[in-house]
Amino acid sequence: MVLDPTASSPDLTRAICDIPSVSGDERSLADAVEEAARTAGHLEVIRHGNTIVARTNLGRAQRVVIAGHIDTVPVNDNLPVRDVDIDGEPHIRGRGTVDMKAGVAVQLKLAVEIADPAVDITWMWYDNEEVEASKNGLGLLAADRPDLFEADFAILGEPTAGQVEGGCNGTLRAVVRTHGVRAHSARSWVGENAIHGAAPILTRLAEYRAREIQVEGLGYREGLNAVRIGGGVAGNVIPDLCEVEVNYRFAPSKTIADAEAHVRSVLAGFEIEITDASDGARPGLDAPIAQEFLRAVGAEARPKYGWTDVARFSALGVPAVNYGPGDPHLAHHDEERVPVSQIVDVERGLRAWLTAS
Amino acid sequence: MVLDPTASSPDLTRAICDIPSVSGDERSLADAVEEAARTAGHLEVIRHGNTIVARTNLGRAQRVVIAGHIDTVPVNDNLPVRDVDIDGEPHIRGRGTVDMKAGVAVQLKLAVEIADPAVDITWMWYDNEEVEASKNGLGLLAADRPDLFEADFAILGEPTAGQVEGGCNGTLRAVVRTHGVRAHSARSWVGENAIHGAAPILTRLAEYRAREIQVEGLGYREGLNAVRIGGGVAGNVIPDLCEVEVNYRFAPSKTIADAEAHVRSVLAGFEIEITDASDGARPGLDAPIAQEFLRAVGAEARPKYGWTDVARFSALGVPAVNYGPGDPHLAHHDEERVPVSQIVDVERGLRAWLTAS
Repeated sequence: MVLDPTASSPDLTRAICDIPSVSGDERSLADAVEEAARTAGHLEVIRHGNTIVARTNLGRAQRVVIAGHIDTVPVNDNLPVRDVDIDGEPHIRGRGTVDMKAGVAVQLKLAVEIADPAVDITWMWYDNEEVEASKNGLGLLAADRPDLFEADFAILGEPTAGQVEGGCNGTLRAVVRTHGVRAHSARSWVGENAIHGAAPILTRLAEYRAREIQVEGLGYREGLNAVRIGGGVAGNVIPDLCEVEVNYRFAPSKTIADAEAHVRSVLAGFEIEITDASDGARPGLDAPIAQEFLRAVGAEARPKYGWTDVARFSALGVPAVNYGPGDPHLAHHDEERVPVSQIVDVERGLRAWLTAS
Repeated sequence: MVLDPTASSPDLTRAICDIPSVSGDERSLADAVEEAARTAGHLEVIRHGNTIVARTNLGRAQRVVIAGHIDTVPVNDNLPVRDVDIDGEPHIRGRGTVDMKAGVAVQLKLAVEIADPAVDITWMWYDNEEVEASKNGLGLLAADRPDLFEADFAILGEPTAGQVEGGCNGTLRAVVRTHGVRAHSARSWVGENAIHGAAPILTRLAEYRAREIQVEGLGYREGLNAVRIGGGVAGNVIPDLCEVEVNYRFAPSKTIADAEAHVRSVLAGFEIEITDASDGARPGLDAPIAQEFLRAVGAEARPKYGWTDVARFSALGVPAVNYGPGDPHLAHHDEERVPVSQIVDVERGLRAWLTAS
């Protein structure tokens, strides 16, 4: 399969979406992206598994990384893409249109077309973003080739409906346990019901009011939620164990230790095991290059709530934002669809910034 | 394998326990019980699957059914039985000693030895009591041969530590559901957390104080408990469903409809689905024959909390009680063991009543 990077960005979006690339099955699309990148003489192309890196080496004063993942969640009868009108506005509908092949299409087109950018650019198109972190192509590349991540700024093409979303909240998961004493439910007073013992956990979570934390001018809304509950031995047994898994999404001004302390304070008195935690990413929008980017694309900065790979750049000391076409609420949705106008707008915004003198 | 019904009841207990008969695998023991029963000329023996019925037909004014199940829960390295001393008291330890082969041993011995009882007796030894109700040998016999259940009184040899336990509580199970709106946990305010919505269910159950209901002079302690809870989609999703399974054990003076109304009242405002219900059994101790039995065995009547097959007799209009050796709290326990003295006491009690002039 061949991609034509000189096609319009909506047409390139259609073509990229119609090469299915569910996580773990990205080879065909990676091949096509690599081949398209290699048509541009100004790009050094590096392949790392199914991750393609293409970069300029023009000796510019600054370098930016612009990245996007090429995998999608599973197809569900929503390929090939279809053109649909919604309230009179043309959309492209199908798996990957939002998350995030329209963004990849814009990036690939600009990579090939902009031979003389104002900053050096390292383009990265990577695999396995939608699955466990250990398989993430960007993470594997960073482990093998940290030199490729040296940059002044990074842009991830995750869907933001054409706005700029800075940083991301951190996330922490914990399992909260109550213990009891098993007994036959016909003589329940002999036992102690661990599920009943979990009542205060759910009450505190239900009454919890999440805060909005200001970080570098953006308001990060937090959340503390039960995402799973389980308990019970049999229909005639008083249960001796109940587990509530909670997920705390915390502002990027907090460390994982801060987040853990907060969860332990809200659920004080219960056994708590921290099972998983990832730092957030500060928006980094106070950097001059970030301010120039915002002015050039003409977009307003907003906070990003979900954890994204911008945190990988943040951890490396590179300010990073999300900027791409598509409504993030439609990501993974079977009715996933992107307005054609947003694809064109993001192309125009990125092009304006990258070619500014 | 051959059983000697003229052996002492502790010896007969040892012999019966050492013929393993986990539910579904009762044939060898049923064969041995049938053969032993057929040695008594005063008994009419009827076989129905692996259920053995043996009865006298002496034209007595009254008839009693005396029944026990011959199956056990799975063996767990606790056969053959061993003789152990606990606080200086001789016990027989091993699978089935409590639930309920000591009771069966006493019954089989008396069936063969008492040729001239004061009442006509229908002895029943049945299979598959420890598994789903549809396989229960007593239930299958009642369906095919309801005539065999015509009686004035019934005694089940379930373990009661040599006391008489009358009737049993009813049991009702229900699933209580809360619904919410699924959302990404990074934007939890878009969704509605069904697990948090279950907080009042657990709070009401935790605060619930079960009552003790007097029925025919016995106090039946009730219980309303969560026996299972489940909810959750994934670690990053606000859950849209939470289910709490509750088990209400209700006094035998209440109907299933009463029990359902009570659960619906305690958990008013929530979606409730009744999944399973069984009537309890009134103790039936106000019948003159029951009073005579209590006097003869010299035992005090207590309520039975757990549901047992006495409810099958109760449903047929036959007053029924539990009376057998062994501590019911040790039933199904790997350390299952019965005091030898309780076996002898129950044999003496039953013999005294059955042979009273």
